[in-house]
Amino acid sequence: MNPDILKERRSATFDVEKLTNILDGGPEKTKRRRDIESMVVSDPDFKEEDPNFLSRSERYDQAVRKSALMIQKLREFGIADPEEIYCYKNSVHSDRPEPLDLHLGMFLPTLLNQATSEQMDRFFMPAWNLKIIGTYAQTEMGHGTHLRGLETTATYDPATQEFVLHSPTISSIKWWPGGLGKTANYAVVLAQLYTQGNNQGLHAFLVQIRDMETHVPLPGVVVGDIGPKFGFVEVDNGFLKLENVRIPRENMLMKYAKVEPDGTYVKPPSAKLTYGTMVFVRSMIVGQSARTLSQACTIVIRYSAVRHQSELRAGEPEPQILDYQAQQYKLFPLLATAYAFQFVSQYMTRTYHRISEDISEGDFSKLPELHALAAGLKAFTTWVTSAGIEVCRMSCGGHGYSRSSALPDLYVDFTSACTYEGENTVMMLQTARYLVKCYRQAKAGQQLGGTVSYLNEAEHRRVRLQPVAAGTTVVDIKDLDSLVEIYKLRAALLIELAAKSIQQELQHKSQEEAWNSNAIDLVRASDAHCHYVVVKLFTEKLGEIDNAEIRSVMSALALLYALHGIANNSGDFLQAGLLSVPQVLQISGSIKRLLSELRPNAVALVDSFDFADRRLNSVLGRYDGNVYEHLFEWARRSPLNATEVHESFHKYLKPLRSKL
Amino acid sequence: MNPDILKERRSATFDVEKLTNILDGGPEKTKRRRDIESMVVSDPDFKEEDPNFLSRSERYDQAVRKSALMIQKLREFGIADPEEIYCYKNSVHSDRPEPLDLHLGMFLPTLLNQATSEQMDRFFMPAWNLKIIGTYAQTEMGHGTHLRGLETTATYDPATQEFVLHSPTISSIKWWPGGLGKTANYAVVLAQLYTQGNNQGLHAFLVQIRDMETHVPLPGVVVGDIGPKFGFVEVDNGFLKLENVRIPRENMLMKYAKVEPDGTYVKPPSAKLTYGTMVFVRSMIVGQSARTLSQACTIVIRYSAVRHQSELRAGEPEPQILDYQAQQYKLFPLLATAYAFQFVSQYMTRTYHRISEDISEGDFSKLPELHALAAGLKAFTTWVTSAGIEVCRMSCGGHGYSRSSALPDLYVDFTSACTYEGENTVMMLQTARYLVKCYRQAKAGQQLGGTVSYLNEAEHRRVRLQPVAAGTTVVDIKDLDSLVEIYKLRAALLIELAAKSIQQELQHKSQEEAWNSNAIDLVRASDAHCHYVVVKLFTEKLGEIDNAEIRSVMSALALLYALHGIANNSGDFLQAGLLSVPQVLQISGSIKRLLSELRPNAVALVDSFDFADRRLNSVLGRYDGNVYEHLFEWARRSPLNATEVHESFHKYLKPLRSKL
Repeated sequence: MNPDILKERRSATFDVEKLTNILDGGPEKTKRRRDIESMVVSDPDFKEEDPNFLSRSERYDQAVRKSALMIQKLREFGIADPEEIYCYKNSVHSDRPEPLDLHLGMFLPTLLNQATSEQMDRFFMPAWNLKIIGTYAQTEMGHGTHLRGLETTATYDPATQEFVLHSPTISSIKWWPGGLGKTANYAVVLAQLYTQGNNQGLHAFLVQIRDMETHVPLPGVVVGDIGPKFGFVEVDNGFLKLENVRIPRENMLMKYAKVEPDGTYVKPPSAKLTYGTMVFVRSMIVGQSARTLSQACTIVIRYSAVRHQSELRAGEPEPQILDYQAQQYKLFPLLATAYAFQFVSQYMTRTYHRISEDISEGDFSKLPELHALAAGLKAFTTWVTSAGIEVCRMSCGGHGYSRSSALPDLYVDFTSACTYEGENTVMMLQTARYLVKCYRQAKAGQQLGGTVSYLNEAEHRRVRLQPVAAGTTVVDIKDLDSLVEIYKLRAALLIELAAKSIQQELQHKSQEEAWNSNAIDLVRASDAHCHYVVVKLFTEKLGEIDNAEIRSVMSALALLYALHGIANNSGDFLQAGLLSVPQVLQISGSIKRLLSELRPNAVALVDSFDFADRRLNSVLGRYDGNVYEHLFEWARRSPLNATEVHESFHKYLKPLRSKL
Repeated sequence: MNPDILKERRSATFDVEKLTNILDGGPEKTKRRRDIESMVVSDPDFKEEDPNFLSRSERYDQAVRKSALMIQKLREFGIADPEEIYCYKNSVHSDRPEPLDLHLGMFLPTLLNQATSEQMDRFFMPAWNLKIIGTYAQTEMGHGTHLRGLETTATYDPATQEFVLHSPTISSIKWWPGGLGKTANYAVVLAQLYTQGNNQGLHAFLVQIRDMETHVPLPGVVVGDIGPKFGFVEVDNGFLKLENVRIPRENMLMKYAKVEPDGTYVKPPSAKLTYGTMVFVRSMIVGQSARTLSQACTIVIRYSAVRHQSELRAGEPEPQILDYQAQQYKLFPLLATAYAFQFVSQYMTRTYHRISEDISEGDFSKLPELHALAAGLKAFTTWVTSAGIEVCRMSCGGHGYSRSSALPDLYVDFTSACTYEGENTVMMLQTARYLVKCYRQAKAGQQLGGTVSYLNEAEHRRVRLQPVAAGTTVVDIKDLDSLVEIYKLRAALLIELAAKSIQQELQHKSQEEAWNSNAIDLVRASDAHCHYVVVKLFTEKLGEIDNAEIRSVMSALALLYALHGIANNSGDFLQAGLLSVPQVLQISGSIKRLLSELRPNAVALVDSFDFADRRLNSVLGRYDGNVYEHLFEWARRSPLNATEVHESFHKYLKPLRSKL
């Protein structure tokens, strides 16, 4: 163990294990998680080559091998609880996306939700046993979030009782589905349904794309890999061009909407039925943000404890870089954010399960709020995390740029979450649509519940758009509840400003135009709402923590999170008279004090996330802190070092001598 | 030509060619640049494989081939002007870093600056003719910016008149130098000089590391590639462990400092002599920021003109995504920034040449200001550009994530500029050190010149730390000169706050502690100073533009740049009473109007950067806008599509069926 990091662990003021338990949801959950993880770590079958040293095809090959093994072992060990499967899978693939993600996360759930019992009989067990390997093909080359714009057609032919699936243009080629390129032999294809001459909108169809035995693409199916990406190296995101491919009528997913043999279309009973999956997936992404930011913080904070650089006091040895205020100011607010997101994720999971029960009892009333919150928090947390990983990477100096740090890979795989499952700006505008609607309802006297209930209060306690005089104490900046209050009022004000501006422009513009010309303010309003929710949930979580030492350090983190957010958006708070000018200066003093206060606990706070070294796969983030010797050892394994002299010397450089 | 992009080009209000000339520095410079670029484009020898489809070793191999060819052709064509060499080189390597970068950019210049005439005779021509291929080995595994911390030793042995070069620890292994891993046979090694028992500090030594004929590492030399990185895929950044390697006394670079045969150390006449190169390199990085951000803007704005998505008006066709306010708000401020940085880069180059002349005449007086400015602007422009590329990438939606967009590569290669040649936070603190010193001088009544002269004025026109009452008109937000003024006052205030706080803490803290505990504010002060300089230089440039149409569109860009910066830092301006609350709202209205005003010129403004398609290598950024057909064509060339069925199906997936 590196002596610096040992010293750090000794300086902790709280019990790391107890905080891990809080994050896991109890000591028994910690134990079960570790049991599952150690099944993978101790399993020689999962030994692997460092992906950093492999070509893309080799990485794909290794990932398929591990995925196949994983399916087999999950059966062997009888792991069937979805949360435990997820844990095992993340451990096998070190949290990296893998070729079977869409089969497990979209294809099987789509069957469960939308297949008739006859279809379940035909498809589910083969898919469960990986004879059928599926994917979910929605996005097209020219069409993303706007589903009505999708061009793929499914035209019903009553003569043969078949659907004809067709990609009429280049832009209609299905593009991006994971596992589609090389792995899948089936796809759920989303297409515009045409029957009896009418377009009935988007529906889902089960389309076989490859031969079950030879795996060769079927006639009329043009399928392949879409080429290298930023990350997702191990995933064969694919394209699919369908050239009048015929599938039996029974392959339309018909649990809700139906096409009768004669071509008669039968509408689904409710449009909200497919809503839930989307909300679930976005809630999961919030959890992914929390986990990824926690990993990045673990790497950079451990490394900052063992890295020495420059001098703080002339003549003294170089200090740990964690002692620099500028470094703390980059990292500790992100550490606070990681904890905030962990608790937000716990909240989202709980809420999703609660509301799912309501839904299964036919009560959809709370779905819109959750839908808006999931969309907003998906965008809010992924943007912050994506940028945050890069701050962590750059805070490691040059070595952060090496793939050995794991931070480059963490970034390229994660940052796609800002785009997939709903592009972030589109998500923020969706949330804004809900908030503006609620604002109007509140103004009309309707009582709102849940996270938007403050829009009622705001009607009473009017926010002034003017600064307060110096000397006025507006808020107690040491009190989290007061801070929650001003975050709330800031959100209320920004929503009101946007809503009023739209209202005004409606006098001479269409609804859509007025909406578009206020998009900047709407995104800001959503952002402020999400920020408020995060501060509020972090503050509420403190009340659930019994252990005094842990509550104390968590309170410091929560305060840092809240104050740092205010400092970075001080214009909003000043403008609304929620803070006075001297208070802004006080806040910057408080932030500095909190950085010093958190310093002795920094390493313990990342240790509490409890990521195994194998999971992080980071030379800089090693638990033992022995960075340099392992960096050297890692570098020597670089494929370019396989030979002492690269052939290019003899091919190009030496022959050049005679020519110059 | 895609009809959308054709329409965009027709809507331009100015002559694209004339703006290109302004960026190049005159029509004759545009012509010469294009001539040089077309030498490369039309040269069949430079035909290459798309690097996206190659392994790292293949990419390195291809890059070495092109670099060798490049050297040969530069001689053939008689291109010898440094600016023209740089242009040819960037065209050959499509602006990517390459294995000979350090040979050309550091090894040869170091010889020119620090070698004696005897050393020039021995080394320069072999290096010029690529018999000697050099690199510059300064950074060590455990030591970066803090040069005094470097551990490598060069101990003089008067008995044999040799230096013994040695890496005493793992952390002392030289790490990162480009071309060191496989390409170079010589290195300039920075090491602590020991002679007659004394450490004389860091000096530079010419060390042969590989055999000239076989290219095999020499005895005592452990050298290799440091492994894969985020970007710089084609560069063999290397490590070098020296095990008591002996070099002749004459291999110490002795133009200034010397070691006599008996071991007597002779000091250099001035410590500032090696200062200039650092300033030059950092000024070049400002230009690189400008170019890279311009490229990213070109790609995303062209793509946003041909991409259609969602609906603005019910029932109408999907609009170009460039028509969305949210999209404009992401891209046009970055476009304005790209222009701002282009002009800042022109200023830095001019200033560097002017001051170089002074220096060559022995006048070092203006060096400290340029040094501080280059450090600050290096950090300011690289941070903004690095984050900006990612905004551009995400604004392309999913396709931005594909390597075909070129944005991922642009990012990974560029973002390292935030770390190399002086880590950005360290740079900002260096600039702050200069600013605080100037502030104290101004306070003591000294008259300052150049970019810091405002610190004199600020002494007279005291900035108040309090908001202004509503209704007060503080500044004309439509007038760029007024905006320059408030940027200046903001910088002055932040410098003053930091300086005063340090002063206060000095009563009970050491100099270093007081400095460290104000690091956050010091970085902010430097940032505000750089921001002011950029706004000022952009504004001044407008006066040089004769063409009325171009001046008009450039003025709109400059205004957008200035106002956007204020909106994003409104807390600072409100706090200092430089803006009233109603003005902050007015600014957000002005920004929206500027976005609409710039919309018709967006494509023309990126066309003016004049990047050839081959240079951008981006399917999304094609000049003709024919994105989708080429995206499909590109994807089909993905190596994973070399076979219809990937072997992993037969190896893992099919056999699994019998096991489940």
